[in-house]
Amino acid sequence: MTLADQPPAAALVFQTLLAQGPLTRAEVGRRTGLSAGAVTKVATPLLADGWITELGRLEGERANGRPATLVAVRAERACFAGVKVTGDELIGFLGDLTAQPLATRRADLRTRDVGTVVHAIARLVAELCAEAGTTAHGPVHSIGVTISGDVDGQTGTVQYTPFLNWRRVPLAQLVQAATGTPTVIENDVRALAVAEQWFGAGAGLSSFALVTVGAGIGAGLSIGGRVVSGAHGVSGEVGHLPVGGSDRVCTCGNTGCVEAVASTHAITEQARQATGDPTLTIDDAVRLAHAGHTAVRAVFSRAGHALGLALASVANLIGPQRIIISGEGVASYDLFADQIRQTFAAQAFGAAADCDIVVRPLPFEEWARGGAAVAAQRLFAPAR
Amino acid sequence: MTLADQPPAAALVFQTLLAQGPLTRAEVGRRTGLSAGAVTKVATPLLADGWITELGRLEGERANGRPATLVAVRAERACFAGVKVTGDELIGFLGDLTAQPLATRRADLRTRDVGTVVHAIARLVAELCAEAGTTAHGPVHSIGVTISGDVDGQTGTVQYTPFLNWRRVPLAQLVQAATGTPTVIENDVRALAVAEQWFGAGAGLSSFALVTVGAGIGAGLSIGGRVVSGAHGVSGEVGHLPVGGSDRVCTCGNTGCVEAVASTHAITEQARQATGDPTLTIDDAVRLAHAGHTAVRAVFSRAGHALGLALASVANLIGPQRIIISGEGVASYDLFADQIRQTFAAQAFGAAADCDIVVRPLPFEEWARGGAAVAAQRLFAPAR
Repeated sequence: MTLADQPPAAALVFQTLLAQGPLTRAEVGRRTGLSAGAVTKVATPLLADGWITELGRLEGERANGRPATLVAVRAERACFAGVKVTGDELIGFLGDLTAQPLATRRADLRTRDVGTVVHAIARLVAELCAEAGTTAHGPVHSIGVTISGDVDGQTGTVQYTPFLNWRRVPLAQLVQAATGTPTVIENDVRALAVAEQWFGAGAGLSSFALVTVGAGIGAGLSIGGRVVSGAHGVSGEVGHLPVGGSDRVCTCGNTGCVEAVASTHAITEQARQATGDPTLTIDDAVRLAHAGHTAVRAVFSRAGHALGLALASVANLIGPQRIIISGEGVASYDLFADQIRQTFAAQAFGAAADCDIVVRPLPFEEWARGGAAVAAQRLFAPAR
Repeated sequence: MTLADQPPAAALVFQTLLAQGPLTRAEVGRRTGLSAGAVTKVATPLLADGWITELGRLEGERANGRPATLVAVRAERACFAGVKVTGDELIGFLGDLTAQPLATRRADLRTRDVGTVVHAIARLVAELCAEAGTTAHGPVHSIGVTISGDVDGQTGTVQYTPFLNWRRVPLAQLVQAATGTPTVIENDVRALAVAEQWFGAGAGLSSFALVTVGAGIGAGLSIGGRVVSGAHGVSGEVGHLPVGGSDRVCTCGNTGCVEAVASTHAITEQARQATGDPTLTIDDAVRLAHAGHTAVRAVFSRAGHALGLALASVANLIGPQRIIISGEGVASYDLFADQIRQTFAAQAFGAAADCDIVVRPLPFEEWARGGAAVAAQRLFAPAR
């Protein structure tokens, strides 16, 4: 049985169980709007093929005189690998159908050569499987590779990724050829947003924005239970919101971008100017700011102001229930926090300021888990 | 039969027929993911109560040996009124179940007093009904009132509307009490986006942004077939995106807002400064710019730059398939157009620049039609 061949109602039932299960059939019917007959009809092949299972009867609950049986997805039915690709490292995650971890592993990346990186991804997935002893779960069902930049998940092509300087790389196809395993790709921040939506700080929310701050500044936007992918593959480019200031040029060639003042690189450069020390690192900058160096503190404050304007732009446009801030940058969040909150409060329009802002450090393993979650989600074509 | 009491599958079938019908039952099943049995089950009470109808058999098409019958909504089953409230005028629209027009009418508004405005809305709806002779359609099923600002459609409260300077007005309840007809309210731009999604330049698109330029600057964002409403009632506030510049203070109290340089009022003020004529109107400014007045042309160019940055922000964040520009401001769009396109092309990130930009003048009657469309959409609670 191929899940992709199942009717849309099967996808709806399965995804409801995945996100909200275990549930009784009656409850599945209520939540999907399907009749009892329709639920039973689509559940039968899923049960037969082991994707879902009956957990036994619910004490004291009966629907139509029949005992109510809880139905749940079988987490062990399949496993999924997620790999996050950065400029100098691969981070791997192997999880079951519900993206619960079976193994994690990292590998250094010393080249930008596409073929070598693809080979390293294949080796890392093999190592994850060996580590987990996946015979209990069968072979890896599919792989989700995530990477920053303009990633077209539909065609499996990395249109552009800044850190590796790749353009138009058919990454999904290459990894699939190297591993023999179906592979999907996704922008890394959008994949992390899928993970947050599924089992993180975004679970159960009508909408949220996950904004990541670090070497790049990006966002995954979840609206109505879906992470926005953008009609042309681009979305959540918070780093390239034009929030003013013309003295610094962004990597994209414009001035005024958030990233031009608030990325790790931009903060380091501005701190070098402020101190006159051309060898200063970001860690030095953080140390100096913590020690009270006025000019370096002003650099972080300026970055915080740009980030506050960016968060207000997100709130004014889509009005999310919550904004989750993550990324490497949150390690020194105390240096930005006051300015971010102050600027956000001033610029958010009306009730948009009621948006809940939370800071959440997420290790790269969680980003890689997002890749596995994306792979698991693609078991079916989207229901709608 | 109350439609709101029908199961979610009934809403799904009805909304599919409303937006995509007429369709055969089999096609409804395919598009909704419901089984043939489920479609028949939910269609039966809708047929019995006259919300949908069978149009007769489709020549030459047979499903399962039975002739395929086309099913459609009965446009004449109910009629809906839409009223757009501006600072000095009410614009009314009466439409059938598919929001096709039965009558339109305007009324001057010479006061900001809530009670008087509510009374004027009730009178306008009565006049629309008299004009259309709605006995054929029965009484008005419900009314959709639209107004600019922070409008909470869930509670029916206008939190804040700038032109009338209302705060926390329970408008839906007041209009309902005055007319005896169920009433919903919505932000005017979001309502116009619903109309565009349903039967305008947004029909059939996976996502689009409708940006309106005039006295205010706002947007309705449609993603995955839904207009984004914002968790706290605020969304699409393009006019309050901070795009830089600190010499002009916005009505919201901040500097750097798009509205502070690109609203009708802001353009007029800047043109007055540029010419030294404190009595200059927006029409004068348009005339001077068309006549080649350099300083006044520069005012429109600056507004176009801010709008270009705003559109790029929308594209970079949500990556819509299309951006539709409308509002009173498009009457003099030629004065902005070059600068908007140039700035947008420079600031849109990667493939986000592929977004289609169209300009579409929409009379206020079309905005009022959005109110009727919102009322018709609320026949059921949202399907999901």
